[in-house]
Amino acid sequence: MTIQEYLQEKAAWIETALDKVLPRATQKPHVVHEAMRYSCLGGGKRLRAILAMAACRSVGGQEKDALGYALALEMIHAYSLVHDDLPAMDDDDYRRGKLTSHKVYGEGMAVLVGDALLTQAMEQLAKLPEFYPVTLPTASRLMLAVTQAIGTKGMIGGQVLDLVHSGKQVNKDELETIHRLKTGALIAVSLTGGAMIGGAKTDELAALVRFSENFGLAFQITDDILDVVGDAEVLGKATGADAKQQKATYPGLYGLDESRSMAARCVNDCVASLKHLSGDTWALQELARYVLERDR
Amino acid sequence: MTIQEYLQEKAAWIETALDKVLPRATQKPHVVHEAMRYSCLGGGKRLRAILAMAACRSVGGQEKDALGYALALEMIHAYSLVHDDLPAMDDDDYRRGKLTSHKVYGEGMAVLVGDALLTQAMEQLAKLPEFYPVTLPTASRLMLAVTQAIGTKGMIGGQVLDLVHSGKQVNKDELETIHRLKTGALIAVSLTGGAMIGGAKTDELAALVRFSENFGLAFQITDDILDVVGDAEVLGKATGADAKQQKATYPGLYGLDESRSMAARCVNDCVASLKHLSGDTWALQELARYVLERDR
Repeated sequence: MTIQEYLQEKAAWIETALDKVLPRATQKPHVVHEAMRYSCLGGGKRLRAILAMAACRSVGGQEKDALGYALALEMIHAYSLVHDDLPAMDDDDYRRGKLTSHKVYGEGMAVLVGDALLTQAMEQLAKLPEFYPVTLPTASRLMLAVTQAIGTKGMIGGQVLDLVHSGKQVNKDELETIHRLKTGALIAVSLTGGAMIGGAKTDELAALVRFSENFGLAFQITDDILDVVGDAEVLGKATGADAKQQKATYPGLYGLDESRSMAARCVNDCVASLKHLSGDTWALQELARYVLERDR
Repeated sequence: MTIQEYLQEKAAWIETALDKVLPRATQKPHVVHEAMRYSCLGGGKRLRAILAMAACRSVGGQEKDALGYALALEMIHAYSLVHDDLPAMDDDDYRRGKLTSHKVYGEGMAVLVGDALLTQAMEQLAKLPEFYPVTLPTASRLMLAVTQAIGTKGMIGGQVLDLVHSGKQVNKDELETIHRLKTGALIAVSLTGGAMIGGAKTDELAALVRFSENFGLAFQITDDILDVVGDAEVLGKATGADAKQQKATYPGLYGLDESRSMAARCVNDCVASLKHLSGDTWALQELARYVLERDR
Protein backbone atom coordinates (compact mmCIF):
# COMPACT_ATOMS: atom_id res chain seq x y z
CA MET A 1 0.00 0.00 0.00
CA THR A 2 1.33 3.46 -0.87
CA ILE A 3 0.90 6.34 1.56
CA GLN A 4 -1.55 7.92 -0.92
CA GLU A 5 -3.69 4.77 -0.79
CA TYR A 6 -3.43 4.72 3.02
CA LEU A 7 -4.54 8.36 3.23
CA GLN A 8 -7.43 7.72 0.85
CA GLU A 9 -8.63 4.66 2.71
CA LYS A 10 -8.48 6.31 6.13
CA ALA A 11 -10.09 9.54 4.88
CA ALA A 12 -12.95 7.40 3.53
CA TRP A 13 -13.35 5.72 6.95
CA ILE A 14 -13.59 9.17 8.55
CA GLU A 15 -16.07 10.47 6.01
CA THR A 16 -18.37 7.47 6.47
CA ALA A 17 -18.16 7.54 10.25
CA LEU A 18 -18.65 11.33 10.49
CA ASP A 19 -21.70 11.01 8.25
CA LYS A 20 -23.12 8.52 10.76
CA VAL A 21 -22.41 10.42 14.00
CA LEU A 22 -23.34 13.94 12.85
CA PRO A 23 -27.06 14.63 13.32
CA ARG A 24 -29.13 14.16 10.13
CA ALA A 25 -30.24 17.37 8.41
CA THR A 26 -33.79 16.02 8.75
CA GLN A 27 -33.59 16.45 12.54
CA LYS A 28 -34.74 19.75 14.05
CA PRO A 29 -33.48 22.45 13.98
CA HIS A 30 -32.68 21.48 10.37
CA VAL A 31 -30.53 24.45 9.42
CA VAL A 32 -27.85 23.98 12.07
CA HIS A 33 -27.52 20.26 11.35
CA GLU A 34 -27.34 20.92 7.62
CA ALA A 35 -24.67 23.58 8.28
CA MET A 36 -22.67 21.28 10.59
CA ARG A 37 -22.62 18.62 7.88
CA TYR A 38 -21.71 21.24 5.25
CA SER A 39 -18.65 22.29 7.26
CA CYS A 40 -17.59 18.83 8.43
CA LEU A 41 -18.25 16.52 5.47
CA GLY A 42 -17.09 16.27 1.87
CA GLY A 43 -13.48 17.29 1.94
CA GLY A 44 -10.40 18.03 3.93
CA LYS A 45 -7.25 16.00 4.31
CA ARG A 46 -8.43 14.49 7.64
CA LEU A 47 -4.86 14.95 8.79
CA ARG A 48 -5.58 15.06 12.53
CA ALA A 49 -7.79 11.98 12.36
CA ILE A 50 -5.22 10.03 10.37
CA LEU A 51 -2.41 11.06 12.71
CA ALA A 52 -4.45 9.79 15.66
CA MET A 53 -5.10 6.44 13.98
CA ALA A 54 -1.50 6.07 12.75
CA ALA A 55 -0.20 6.95 16.25
CA CYS A 56 -2.46 4.30 17.77
CA ARG A 57 -0.88 1.74 15.40
CA SER A 58 2.64 3.04 16.06
CA VAL A 59 2.46 1.89 19.70
CA GLY A 60 0.90 -1.48 18.97
CA GLY A 61 -2.83 -0.67 18.71
CA GLN A 62 -5.12 -0.82 15.70
CA GLU A 63 -6.25 2.17 13.64
CA LYS A 64 -9.95 1.45 14.12
CA ASP A 65 -9.67 1.65 17.92
CA ALA A 66 -8.87 5.38 17.58
CA LEU A 67 -11.59 6.06 14.98
CA GLY A 68 -14.11 7.49 17.47
CA TYR A 69 -11.45 9.75 18.92
CA ALA A 70 -10.43 10.79 15.42
CA LEU A 71 -14.00 11.93 14.68
CA ALA A 72 -13.93 14.27 17.66
CA LEU A 73 -10.65 15.77 16.39
CA GLU A 74 -12.14 16.44 12.95
CA MET A 75 -15.19 18.13 14.49
CA ILE A 76 -12.89 20.31 16.58
CA HIS A 77 -10.83 21.18 13.52
CA ALA A 78 -14.00 22.05 11.56
CA TYR A 79 -15.26 24.25 14.43
CA SER A 80 -11.97 26.15 14.54
CA LEU A 81 -12.11 26.78 10.79
CA VAL A 82 -15.72 27.98 10.85
CA HIS A 83 -14.94 30.52 13.57
CA ASP A 84 -11.57 31.46 12.03
CA ASP A 85 -13.24 32.24 8.70
CA LEU A 86 -15.75 34.68 10.25
CA PRO A 87 -15.69 38.30 9.03
CA ALA A 88 -14.56 39.44 12.50
CA MET A 89 -11.61 37.03 12.28
CA ASP A 90 -9.83 36.06 9.01
CA ASP A 91 -12.82 36.99 6.82
CA ASP A 92 -12.43 34.16 4.31
CA ASP A 93 -15.01 33.46 1.61
CA TYR A 94 -13.74 30.05 0.47
CA ARG A 95 -12.49 26.96 2.28
CA ARG A 96 -11.73 23.56 0.73
CA GLY A 97 -13.06 24.94 -2.57
CA LYS A 98 -16.49 25.70 -1.09
CA LEU A 99 -18.07 28.89 0.23
CA THR A 100 -17.37 29.28 3.95
CA SER A 101 -20.14 28.66 6.47
CA HIS A 102 -20.95 32.30 7.16
CA LYS A 103 -21.20 33.03 3.42
CA VAL A 104 -23.84 30.29 3.07
CA TYR A 105 -25.69 30.44 6.40
CA GLY A 106 -24.95 33.94 7.70
CA GLU A 107 -22.67 35.15 10.43
CA GLY A 108 -24.84 34.45 13.46
CA MET A 109 -25.51 30.90 12.32
CA ALA A 110 -21.80 30.31 11.66
CA VAL A 111 -21.01 31.26 15.27
CA LEU A 112 -23.59 28.71 16.44
CA VAL A 113 -22.38 26.06 13.98
CA GLY A 114 -18.87 26.33 15.39
CA ASP A 115 -20.23 26.15 18.93
CA ALA A 116 -22.29 23.10 17.97
CA LEU A 117 -19.34 21.27 16.40
CA LEU A 118 -17.19 21.86 19.49
CA THR A 119 -20.01 20.66 21.74
CA GLN A 120 -20.65 17.60 19.56
CA ALA A 121 -16.92 16.79 19.69
CA MET A 122 -17.05 16.83 23.50
CA GLU A 123 -20.14 14.59 23.46
CA GLN A 124 -18.24 12.25 21.13
CA LEU A 125 -15.33 12.09 23.60
CA ALA A 126 -17.74 11.40 26.47
CA LYS A 127 -19.25 8.51 24.49
CA LEU A 128 -15.98 6.76 23.58
CA PRO A 129 -16.14 4.07 26.30
CA GLU A 130 -19.62 3.11 25.07
CA PHE A 131 -18.66 2.50 21.44
CA TYR A 132 -14.89 1.92 21.28
CA PRO A 133 -12.29 -0.09 23.19
CA VAL A 134 -11.47 2.96 25.37
CA THR A 135 -11.58 2.56 29.15
CA LEU A 136 -13.19 5.16 31.42
CA PRO A 137 -9.81 6.33 32.83
CA THR A 138 -8.39 6.68 29.29
CA ALA A 139 -11.48 8.61 28.16
CA SER A 140 -11.06 10.92 31.14
CA ARG A 141 -7.36 11.50 30.30
CA LEU A 142 -8.30 12.20 26.67
CA MET A 143 -10.94 14.73 27.69
CA LEU A 144 -8.44 16.59 29.86
CA ALA A 145 -5.67 16.46 27.23
CA VAL A 146 -7.96 17.67 24.45
CA THR A 147 -9.58 20.52 26.40
CA GLN A 148 -6.12 21.76 27.43
CA ALA A 149 -4.79 21.47 23.87
CA ILE A 150 -7.64 23.52 22.41
CA GLY A 151 -7.99 26.10 25.21
CA THR A 152 -6.31 29.46 25.76
CA LYS A 153 -2.92 27.84 26.36
CA GLY A 154 -3.33 25.94 23.09
CA MET A 155 -5.39 26.39 19.94
CA ILE A 156 -7.60 29.28 21.08
CA GLY A 157 -4.51 31.03 22.49
CA GLY A 158 -2.96 30.80 19.02
CA GLN A 159 -6.09 32.24 17.41
CA VAL A 160 -6.04 35.07 19.95
CA LEU A 161 -2.39 35.90 19.14
CA ASP A 162 -3.13 35.67 15.43
CA LEU A 163 -6.02 38.12 15.84
CA VAL A 164 -4.00 40.48 18.04
CA HIS A 165 -1.07 40.53 15.58
CA SER A 166 -3.18 40.66 12.42
CA GLY A 167 -1.92 43.41 10.11
CA LYS A 168 1.19 43.93 12.27
CA GLN A 169 4.79 42.82 11.81
CA VAL A 170 5.64 39.77 13.90
CA ASN A 171 9.12 38.42 14.57
CA LYS A 172 10.31 34.83 14.25
CA ASP A 173 9.56 33.90 17.88
CA GLU A 174 6.05 35.32 17.76
CA LEU A 175 5.38 33.51 14.49
CA GLU A 176 6.52 30.18 15.93
CA THR A 177 4.46 30.67 19.08
CA ILE A 178 1.35 31.40 17.03
CA HIS A 179 1.79 28.27 14.91
CA ARG A 180 2.76 26.06 17.84
CA LEU A 181 -0.44 27.03 19.62
CA LYS A 182 -2.85 27.48 16.73
CA THR A 183 -1.97 24.34 14.74
CA GLY A 184 0.63 22.45 16.75
CA ALA A 185 -1.31 21.85 19.95
CA LEU A 186 -4.20 20.01 18.25
CA ILE A 187 -1.78 17.99 16.10
CA ALA A 188 0.18 17.02 19.22
CA VAL A 189 -2.92 15.81 21.07
CA SER A 190 -4.09 13.97 17.96
CA LEU A 191 -0.90 11.91 18.11
CA THR A 192 -0.65 11.48 21.89
CA GLY A 193 -4.38 10.81 22.27
CA GLY A 194 -4.36 8.15 19.56
CA ALA A 195 -1.33 6.62 21.23
CA MET A 196 -3.04 6.62 24.66
CA ILE A 197 -5.83 4.56 23.12
CA GLY A 198 -3.18 2.20 21.71
CA GLY A 199 -1.74 1.74 25.19
CA ALA A 200 1.38 3.91 24.84
CA LYS A 201 4.01 3.98 27.57
CA THR A 202 5.32 7.30 28.92
CA ASP A 203 8.48 7.35 26.78
CA GLU A 204 6.41 6.60 23.68
CA LEU A 205 4.18 9.59 24.41
CA ALA A 206 7.29 11.76 24.81
CA ALA A 207 8.65 10.56 21.44
CA LEU A 208 5.32 11.40 19.80
CA VAL A 209 5.37 14.88 21.33
CA ARG A 210 8.78 15.44 19.67
CA PHE A 211 7.41 14.01 16.42
CA SER A 212 4.42 16.36 16.60
CA GLU A 213 6.56 19.46 17.20
CA ASN A 214 8.63 18.84 14.10
CA PHE A 215 5.65 17.63 12.09
CA GLY A 216 3.58 20.68 13.00
CA LEU A 217 6.37 23.05 12.08
CA ALA A 218 7.07 21.28 8.76
CA PHE A 219 3.37 21.37 7.99
CA GLN A 220 3.06 25.08 8.71
CA ILE A 221 6.13 25.94 6.64
CA THR A 222 4.78 24.00 3.63
CA ASP A 223 1.39 25.63 4.16
CA ASP A 224 3.03 29.04 3.90
CA ILE A 225 5.02 27.91 0.84
CA LEU A 226 1.83 26.66 -0.86
CA ASP A 227 0.20 30.05 -0.24
CA VAL A 228 3.01 31.54 -2.37
CA VAL A 229 3.59 28.89 -5.07
CA GLY A 230 0.51 26.63 -4.84
CA ASP A 231 -2.28 26.17 -7.36
CA ALA A 232 -5.50 27.78 -6.07
CA GLU A 233 -7.62 25.17 -7.85
CA VAL A 234 -5.78 22.22 -6.28
CA LEU A 235 -5.70 23.91 -2.85
CA GLY A 236 -9.40 24.79 -2.98
CA LYS A 237 -8.72 28.29 -1.66
CA ALA A 238 -7.20 31.51 -2.96
CA THR A 239 -3.41 31.77 -2.79
CA GLY A 240 -1.58 34.94 -1.82
CA ALA A 241 -3.94 35.48 1.12
CA ASP A 242 -1.09 35.76 3.62
CA ALA A 243 0.66 38.49 1.62
CA LYS A 244 -2.63 40.37 1.14
CA GLN A 245 -3.22 40.30 4.90
CA GLN A 246 0.43 41.18 5.61
CA LYS A 247 0.71 37.99 7.66
CA ALA A 248 4.13 36.90 8.82
CA THR A 249 5.10 33.72 6.95
CA TYR A 250 8.21 31.54 6.67
CA PRO A 251 8.83 32.42 2.99
CA GLY A 252 8.35 36.09 3.91
CA LEU A 253 10.87 35.89 6.74
CA TYR A 254 13.40 33.40 5.30
CA GLY A 255 12.76 33.18 1.56
CA LEU A 256 11.45 30.12 -0.31
CA ASP A 257 14.70 28.11 -0.48
CA GLU A 258 15.59 28.39 3.19
CA SER A 259 11.96 27.64 4.10
CA ARG A 260 12.11 24.43 2.06
CA SER A 261 15.35 23.41 3.81
CA MET A 262 13.81 24.11 7.22
CA ALA A 263 10.84 21.91 6.40
CA ALA A 264 13.14 19.09 5.23
CA ARG A 265 15.18 19.26 8.46
CA CYS A 266 11.98 19.04 10.52
CA VAL A 267 10.89 15.94 8.62
CA ASN A 268 14.25 14.24 9.24
CA ASP A 269 13.87 14.95 12.97
CA CYS A 270 10.32 13.50 12.81
CA VAL A 271 11.55 10.24 11.36
CA ALA A 272 14.36 10.03 13.92
CA SER A 273 11.95 10.20 16.87
CA LEU A 274 9.95 7.19 15.59
CA LYS A 275 12.64 4.69 16.62
CA HIS A 276 11.39 4.87 20.22
CA LEU A 277 7.99 3.39 19.34
CA SER A 278 7.08 -0.27 19.79
CA GLY A 279 4.52 -0.69 17.00
CA ASP A 280 4.29 -0.26 13.23
CA THR A 281 5.57 3.25 12.41
CA TRP A 282 5.39 2.99 8.61
CA ALA A 283 2.38 5.30 8.24
CA LEU A 284 3.77 8.04 10.52
CA GLN A 285 7.10 7.93 8.68
CA GLU A 286 5.45 8.19 5.27
CA LEU A 287 3.11 10.92 6.52
CA ALA A 288 6.08 13.02 7.63
CA ARG A 289 7.76 12.61 4.22
CA TYR A 290 4.46 13.32 2.46
CA VAL A 291 4.32 16.79 4.04
CA LEU A 292 7.26 17.88 1.86
CA GLU A 293 5.64 16.65 -1.36
CA ARG A 294 2.05 17.71 -0.88
CA ASP A 295 0.41 20.16 -3.28
CA ARG A 296 -2.66 20.89 -1.12
CA MET B 1 -31.28 31.78 57.12
CA THR B 2 -33.53 33.52 54.60
CA ILE B 3 -33.42 32.57 50.95
CA GLN B 4 -31.81 35.95 50.19
CA GLU B 5 -29.01 35.15 52.64
CA TYR B 6 -28.67 31.67 51.13
CA LEU B 7 -28.42 33.13 47.63
CA GLN B 8 -25.84 35.70 48.75
CA GLU B 9 -23.69 33.13 50.52
CA LYS B 10 -23.71 30.67 47.65
CA ALA B 11 -23.10 33.38 45.04
CA ALA B 12 -20.06 34.45 47.07
CA TRP B 13 -18.76 30.86 47.08
CA ILE B 14 -19.10 30.78 43.31
CA GLU B 15 -17.41 34.14 42.82
CA THR B 16 -14.43 33.12 44.96
CA ALA B 17 -14.07 29.71 43.33
CA LEU B 18 -14.45 31.06 39.78
CA ASP B 19 -11.79 33.64 40.53
CA LYS B 20 -9.47 30.77 41.49
CA VAL B 21 -10.11 28.44 38.53
CA LEU B 22 -10.20 31.02 35.73
CA PRO B 23 -6.71 31.73 34.34
CA ARG B 24 -5.11 34.89 35.79
CA ALA B 25 -5.04 37.91 33.49
CA THR B 26 -1.26 37.93 34.01
CA GLN B 27 -1.01 34.65 32.06
CA LYS B 28 -0.43 34.82 28.30
CA PRO B 29 -2.27 35.61 26.12
CA HIS B 30 -3.36 38.29 28.59
CA VAL B 31 -6.27 39.75 26.68
CA VAL B 32 -8.34 36.58 26.39
CA HIS B 33 -7.89 35.75 30.08
CA GLU B 34 -8.80 39.29 31.07
CA ALA B 35 -11.86 39.08 28.82
CA MET B 36 -12.90 35.67 30.22
CA ARG B 37 -12.73 37.09 33.74
CA TYR B 38 -14.62 40.21 32.63
CA SER B 39 -17.50 38.08 31.32
CA CYS B 40 -17.52 35.48 34.08
CA LEU B 41 -16.81 37.41 37.30
CA GLY B 42 -18.42 40.26 39.19
CA GLY B 43 -22.11 39.73 38.83
CA GLY B 44 -24.94 37.53 37.78
CA LYS B 45 -27.41 35.68 39.91
CA ARG B 46 -25.43 32.40 39.69
CA LEU B 47 -28.80 30.73 39.36
CA ARG B 48 -27.56 27.58 37.57
CA ALA B 49 -24.74 27.09 40.05
CA ILE B 50 -27.05 27.53 43.03
CA LEU B 51 -29.64 25.17 41.55
CA ALA B 52 -26.94 22.51 41.14
CA MET B 53 -25.80 22.89 44.74
CA ALA B 54 -29.34 23.03 46.12
CA ALA B 55 -30.26 19.92 44.08
CA CYS B 56 -27.26 18.07 45.47
CA ARG B 57 -28.53 18.85 49.00
CA SER B 58 -32.12 17.94 48.08
CA VAL B 59 -31.14 14.30 47.58
CA GLY B 60 -28.96 14.01 50.66
CA GLY B 61 -25.61 15.43 49.47
CA GLN B 62 -23.82 18.61 50.51
CA GLU B 63 -23.75 21.86 48.53
CA LYS B 64 -19.96 22.02 48.43
CA ASP B 65 -19.70 18.62 46.69
CA ALA B 66 -21.38 20.15 43.63
CA LEU B 67 -19.32 23.38 43.69
CA GLY B 68 -16.85 22.28 40.98
CA TYR B 69 -19.72 21.22 38.75
CA ALA B 70 -21.47 24.52 39.45
CA LEU B 71 -18.42 26.45 38.19
CA ALA B 72 -18.59 24.64 34.85
CA LEU B 73 -22.27 25.58 34.55
CA GLU B 74 -21.52 29.26 35.16
CA MET B 75 -18.75 29.24 32.54
CA ILE B 76 -21.15 27.66 30.06
CA HIS B 77 -23.80 30.25 30.89
CA ALA B 78 -21.26 33.07 30.44
CA TYR B 79 -20.13 31.63 27.09
CA SER B 80 -23.70 31.47 25.84
CA LEU B 81 -24.30 35.11 26.83
CA VAL B 82 -21.10 36.37 25.18
CA HIS B 83 -22.03 34.72 21.88
CA ASP B 84 -25.71 35.64 22.20
CA ASP B 85 -24.81 39.33 22.65
CA LEU B 86 -22.73 39.45 19.42
CA PRO B 87 -23.84 41.91 16.71
CA ALA B 88 -24.64 38.96 14.40
CA MET B 89 -26.95 37.56 17.11
CA ASP B 90 -28.93 39.69 19.61
CA ASP B 91 -26.61 42.71 19.24
CA ASP B 92 -26.71 43.77 22.88
CA ASP B 93 -24.47 46.53 24.26
CA TYR B 94 -25.08 45.95 27.98
CA ARG B 95 -25.26 42.88 30.19
CA ARG B 96 -25.43 42.79 34.00
CA GLY B 97 -24.98 46.58 33.93
CA LYS B 98 -21.65 46.35 32.09
CA LEU B 99 -20.69 46.75 28.44
CA THR B 100 -20.87 43.41 26.65
CA SER B 101 -17.69 41.56 25.74
CA HIS B 102 -17.66 42.53 22.07
CA LYS B 103 -18.15 46.19 22.95
CA VAL B 104 -15.03 46.10 25.13
CA TYR B 105 -12.78 43.60 23.33
CA GLY B 106 -14.10 43.62 19.75
CA GLU B 107 -16.17 41.09 17.88
CA GLY B 108 -13.45 38.60 16.90
CA MET B 109 -12.15 38.44 20.45
CA ALA B 110 -15.68 37.95 21.82
CA VAL B 111 -16.12 34.89 19.58
CA LEU B 112 -12.87 33.47 20.98
CA VAL B 113 -13.77 34.39 24.57
CA GLY B 114 -17.01 32.41 24.27
CA ASP B 115 -15.11 29.48 22.74
CA ALA B 116 -12.56 29.67 25.56
CA LEU B 117 -15.21 29.70 28.30
CA LEU B 118 -16.94 26.65 26.80
CA THR B 119 -13.61 24.84 26.51
CA GLN B 120 -12.62 25.78 30.07
CA ALA B 121 -15.98 24.49 31.30
CA MET B 122 -15.29 21.13 29.65
CA GLU B 123 -11.81 21.03 31.21
CA GLN B 124 -13.43 21.78 34.57
CA LEU B 125 -15.82 18.83 34.10
CA ALA B 126 -12.92 16.55 33.15
CA LYS B 127 -11.09 17.57 36.35
CA LEU B 128 -13.97 16.98 38.78
CA PRO B 129 -12.77 13.55 40.02
CA GLU B 130 -9.39 15.10 40.87
CA PHE B 131 -10.71 17.89 43.11
CA TYR B 132 -14.22 16.93 44.25
CA PRO B 133 -15.97 13.85 45.63
CA VAL B 134 -17.14 12.87 42.12
CA THR B 135 -16.38 9.35 40.88
CA LEU B 136 -15.10 8.69 37.36
CA PRO B 137 -18.40 7.08 36.23
CA THR B 138 -20.37 10.05 37.61
CA ALA B 139 -18.03 12.53 35.89
CA SER B 140 -18.53 10.64 32.65
CA ARG B 141 -22.33 10.75 33.05
CA LEU B 142 -22.15 14.48 33.80
CA MET B 143 -20.05 15.15 30.70
CA LEU B 144 -22.55 13.33 28.51
CA ALA B 145 -25.57 14.97 30.15
CA VAL B 146 -24.09 18.46 29.88
CA THR B 147 -22.91 18.17 26.27
CA GLN B 148 -26.35 16.91 25.25
CA ALA B 149 -28.10 19.67 27.21
CA ILE B 150 -26.08 22.43 25.55
CA GLY B 151 -25.92 20.98 22.01
CA THR B 152 -28.22 21.36 19.04
CA LYS B 153 -31.00 19.43 20.73
CA GLY B 154 -30.66 21.72 23.76
CA MET B 155 -29.28 25.21 24.33
CA ILE B 156 -27.64 25.79 20.94
CA GLY B 157 -30.81 24.46 19.28
CA GLY B 158 -32.77 27.13 21.16
CA GLN B 159 -30.35 29.85 20.07
CA VAL B 160 -30.68 28.63 16.48
CA LEU B 161 -34.49 28.81 16.63
CA ASP B 162 -34.29 32.23 18.28
CA LEU B 163 -32.02 33.46 15.47
CA VAL B 164 -34.19 31.91 12.74
CA HIS B 165 -37.39 33.44 14.17
CA SER B 166 -35.88 36.80 15.05
CA GLY B 167 -38.07 39.63 13.73
CA LYS B 168 -40.85 37.15 12.85
CA GLN B 169 -44.13 36.30 14.55
CA VAL B 170 -43.92 33.09 16.56
CA ASN B 171 -46.84 31.16 18.01
CA LYS B 172 -47.19 29.79 21.54
CA ASP B 173 -45.71 26.37 20.74
CA GLU B 174 -42.68 27.86 19.00
CA LEU B 175 -42.10 30.25 21.89
CA GLU B 176 -42.20 27.44 24.43
CA THR B 177 -39.85 25.29 22.36
CA ILE B 178 -37.35 28.14 22.11
CA HIS B 179 -37.37 28.74 25.88
CA ARG B 180 -37.36 25.04 26.76
CA LEU B 181 -34.22 24.56 24.67
CA LYS B 182 -32.44 27.89 25.10
CA THR B 183 -32.86 28.27 28.88
CA GLY B 184 -34.61 25.15 30.13
CA ALA B 185 -32.12 22.50 29.03
CA LEU B 186 -29.18 24.00 30.95
CA ILE B 187 -31.36 24.61 34.03
CA ALA B 188 -32.53 20.99 33.88
CA VAL B 189 -29.00 19.59 33.72
CA SER B 190 -27.91 21.96 36.50
CA LEU B 191 -30.48 20.30 38.75
CA THR B 192 -30.05 16.70 37.61
CA GLY B 193 -26.25 16.96 37.47
CA GLY B 194 -26.06 18.39 40.98
CA ALA B 195 -28.37 15.60 42.13
CA MET B 196 -26.21 12.92 40.44
CA ILE B 197 -23.28 14.17 42.49
CA GLY B 198 -25.47 13.93 45.59
CA GLY B 199 -26.23 10.29 44.77
CA ALA B 200 -29.80 10.71 43.45
CA LYS B 201 -31.94 7.68 42.65
CA THR B 202 -33.76 7.42 39.31
CA ASP B 203 -37.14 8.61 40.65
CA GLU B 204 -35.44 11.59 42.28
CA LEU B 205 -33.88 12.60 38.97
CA ALA B 206 -37.31 12.32 37.33
CA ALA B 207 -38.83 14.58 40.02
CA LEU B 208 -36.08 17.14 39.44
CA VAL B 209 -36.72 17.08 35.69
CA ARG B 210 -40.37 17.98 36.41
CA PHE B 211 -39.21 20.67 38.85
CA SER B 212 -36.86 22.09 36.21
CA GLU B 213 -39.53 22.22 33.51
CA ASN B 214 -41.85 24.28 35.67
CA PHE B 215 -39.02 26.32 37.15
CA GLY B 216 -37.59 27.16 33.72
CA LEU B 217 -40.97 28.22 32.40
CA ALA B 218 -41.72 30.36 35.48
CA PHE B 219 -38.30 31.96 35.17
CA GLN B 220 -38.76 32.80 31.50
CA ILE B 221 -42.21 34.25 32.05
CA THR B 222 -40.96 36.52 34.85
CA ASP B 223 -37.97 37.47 32.65
CA ASP B 224 -40.39 38.62 29.96
CA ILE B 225 -42.49 40.45 32.56
CA LEU B 226 -39.41 42.25 33.91
CA ASP B 227 -38.54 43.35 30.38
CA VAL B 228 -41.90 45.19 30.36
CA VAL B 229 -42.26 46.44 33.94
CA GLY B 230 -38.73 46.09 35.39
CA ASP B 231 -36.33 48.81 36.47
CA ALA B 232 -33.42 49.03 34.01
CA GLU B 233 -31.07 50.12 36.78
CA VAL B 234 -31.88 47.16 39.04
CA LEU B 235 -31.84 44.73 36.09
CA GLY B 236 -28.52 46.04 34.80
CA LYS B 237 -29.79 46.04 31.20
CA ALA B 238 -32.18 48.07 29.10
CA THR B 239 -35.86 47.12 29.35
CA GLY B 240 -38.21 47.06 26.39
CA ALA B 241 -35.61 45.17 24.32
CA ASP B 242 -38.04 42.38 23.44
CA ALA B 243 -40.66 44.79 22.10
CA LYS B 244 -38.01 46.70 20.13
CA GLN B 245 -36.85 43.45 18.51
CA GLN B 246 -40.45 42.27 17.97
CA LYS B 247 -39.66 39.18 20.01
CA ALA B 248 -42.52 36.93 21.03
CA THR B 249 -43.00 37.17 24.81
CA TYR B 250 -45.50 35.88 27.34
CA PRO B 251 -46.88 39.35 28.19
CA GLY B 252 -47.12 40.03 24.45
CA LEU B 253 -49.08 36.84 23.81
CA TYR B 254 -51.16 36.59 27.02
CA GLY B 255 -51.03 40.00 28.69
CA LEU B 256 -49.37 40.81 32.03
CA ASP B 257 -52.06 39.44 34.38
CA GLU B 258 -52.41 36.04 32.71
CA SER B 259 -48.60 35.80 32.46
CA ARG B 260 -48.31 36.37 36.22
CA SER B 261 -50.93 33.65 36.88
CA MET B 262 -49.10 31.25 34.59
CA ALA B 263 -45.84 31.83 36.46
CA ALA B 264 -47.57 31.27 39.82
CA ARG B 265 -49.09 27.96 38.63
CA CYS B 266 -45.66 26.79 37.47
CA VAL B 267 -44.17 27.55 40.89
CA ASN B 268 -46.92 25.56 42.65
CA ASP B 269 -46.14 22.59 40.41
CA CYS B 270 -42.44 23.01 41.23
CA VAL B 271 -43.08 22.79 44.94
CA ALA B 272 -45.35 19.76 44.49
CA SER B 273 -42.60 17.75 42.74
CA LEU B 274 -40.19 18.21 45.67
CA LYS B 275 -42.05 15.73 47.88
CA HIS B 276 -40.33 12.86 46.01
CA LEU B 277 -36.86 13.89 47.21
CA SER B 278 -35.08 12.30 50.17
CA GLY B 279 -32.94 15.24 51.32
CA ASP B 280 -33.39 18.85 52.46
CA THR B 281 -35.56 20.60 49.86
CA TRP B 282 -35.88 23.94 51.65
CA ALA B 283 -33.59 25.86 49.29
CA LEU B 284 -35.22 24.52 46.10
CA GLN B 285 -38.67 25.36 47.47
CA GLU B 286 -37.66 28.89 48.41
CA LEU B 287 -35.86 29.36 45.10
CA ALA B 288 -39.01 28.46 43.20
CA ARG B 289 -41.04 30.97 45.24
CA TYR B 290 -38.33 33.60 44.84
CA VAL B 291 -38.77 33.53 41.06
CA LEU B 292 -42.16 35.19 41.45
CA GLU B 293 -40.82 37.99 43.65
CA ARG B 294 -37.55 38.81 41.96
CA ASP B 295 -36.90 42.26 40.53
CA ARG B 296 -33.80 41.31 38.50
